[in-house]
Amino acid sequence: MTRQQLFEQIKEKESFLCVGLDTDIKKIPKHLLDAEDPIFEFNKKIIDATKEYAVAYKPNTAFYEAHGAKGWESLQKTLEYIPKDIFTIADAKRADIGNTSSMYARAFFENMDFDSVTVAPYMGSDSVKPFLEFDRKWVILLAATSNPGGLDFQDVIVSSDGEKLYERVIRKSAEWGNANNIMYVVGATRPEALIGIRRLVPEHFLLIPGVGAQGGDLKAVCKYGMNKHCGLLVNSSRGIIYSDSTEKFAEAAGKEAHKIQVEMAEILQRL
Amino acid sequence: MTRQQLFEQIKEKESFLCVGLDTDIKKIPKHLLDAEDPIFEFNKKIIDATKEYAVAYKPNTAFYEAHGAKGWESLQKTLEYIPKDIFTIADAKRADIGNTSSMYARAFFENMDFDSVTVAPYMGSDSVKPFLEFDRKWVILLAATSNPGGLDFQDVIVSSDGEKLYERVIRKSAEWGNANNIMYVVGATRPEALIGIRRLVPEHFLLIPGVGAQGGDLKAVCKYGMNKHCGLLVNSSRGIIYSDSTEKFAEAAGKEAHKIQVEMAEILQRL
Repeated sequence: MTRQQLFEQIKEKESFLCVGLDTDIKKIPKHLLDAEDPIFEFNKKIIDATKEYAVAYKPNTAFYEAHGAKGWESLQKTLEYIPKDIFTIADAKRADIGNTSSMYARAFFENMDFDSVTVAPYMGSDSVKPFLEFDRKWVILLAATSNPGGLDFQDVIVSSDGEKLYERVIRKSAEWGNANNIMYVVGATRPEALIGIRRLVPEHFLLIPGVGAQGGDLKAVCKYGMNKHCGLLVNSSRGIIYSDSTEKFAEAAGKEAHKIQVEMAEILQRL
Repeated sequence: MTRQQLFEQIKEKESFLCVGLDTDIKKIPKHLLDAEDPIFEFNKKIIDATKEYAVAYKPNTAFYEAHGAKGWESLQKTLEYIPKDIFTIADAKRADIGNTSSMYARAFFENMDFDSVTVAPYMGSDSVKPFLEFDRKWVILLAATSNPGGLDFQDVIVSSDGEKLYERVIRKSAEWGNANNIMYVVGATRPEALIGIRRLVPEHFLLIPGVGAQGGDLKAVCKYGMNKHCGLLVNSSRGIIYSDSTEKFAEAAGKEAHKIQVEMAEILQRL
């Protein structure tokens, strides 16, 4: 999907909501466990209930891999079920030496047909660039993540003018691609980081996890992170998909997504 | 597998060779392509031919994921085929926020039964610790990797006394576990880094990729990286598994592994 298509979808749906499909078999409603593929069954209903309000879906590969080959099939079926005009993110946090990263890129962009994949920056340029060689596909590079451990290394000062590691990661990697094929992950739990990040990459999309269960605040994120074209995808996983654990889980997830979308519409109108 | 069991295996086989199963369908001998599962067929023959000389096998998950669910099955079958007394490494370079890293740990330690998994440090403590909660299982944390891009971020100076990021990663993470459940990845392409690393972690095992196709030198690695119990697993992937592309590929791989084992035996005798 191109940047332009993503912009248009945001305008049309008045939403920049990404729904995280972190589907844990231990957390889905019990009545689904009789289905042949409970994880896919759950995802299908969540997608049906939220697709009107979401511009992106982000399955996290860990939840599928935990079930081996069968889980990988659930992931493939889920991807195929997502409407083609919605942006898809394989939240895989992959990266390896050049020839191996190429294999990961083939896994997510060819064997499957995700629009984007999250990539970890620690191994540097040749671990990231193979993902940038695919037309209309995106790297979403980890920069300042939402978890407590994110502070351990990402925030260390790496130069005498006070540059932090995550800023160095953004500054360097922005040279490997551009605003049409790289986005950055910035946790909603630290909106203050967004001010400096927007100085470095005013045009790039940012993927913001951590709203909801992890405690991030949508308004603060938008205040510091939005650019004139929106430029944000804000993800909520647990806050939406597990908002109810009965047979009405999908309806509840739809309501939760709608509530966020209404908030987002208001914010977008002020742009 | 415990540290003691790994020591004993090294002594018995007079080897600290790890064979990397980076099995690329485009590179395996053509006659195997008629098999039902060519990747597993290849791995089986490679394992049969090298198991006498190897103390560890390291399939890189990228090469399996590139084939989706079917590839994941090849990986599972490969793991089951490896003799139980040989150390197994899922070279997956995973890590995510705490609850998600737990899912990855379950994928590799419960759904499959790998002894260890390679983990990327960028997301910090809560992304690594879930892997350390399993008895007799290991985290092999990326420190100074063998690829050119490894220099982009791992070597940046992070303190006024000249500490590099990879040194910080080792120093901090050594507090999260110990020499019985953490190893570090240090590329054979930069043996000089091993001097400083051995000061930080004299007792830990180091996994050294990059000997062979990537140009690393075994003698230099041993000179700077060995401790009194050996403390090294030296990996070769392409240099062994693709040393011949005819029907005699397995025999050739066995010869190549044997050649390295003989070199290693000599080095071990001098310990």
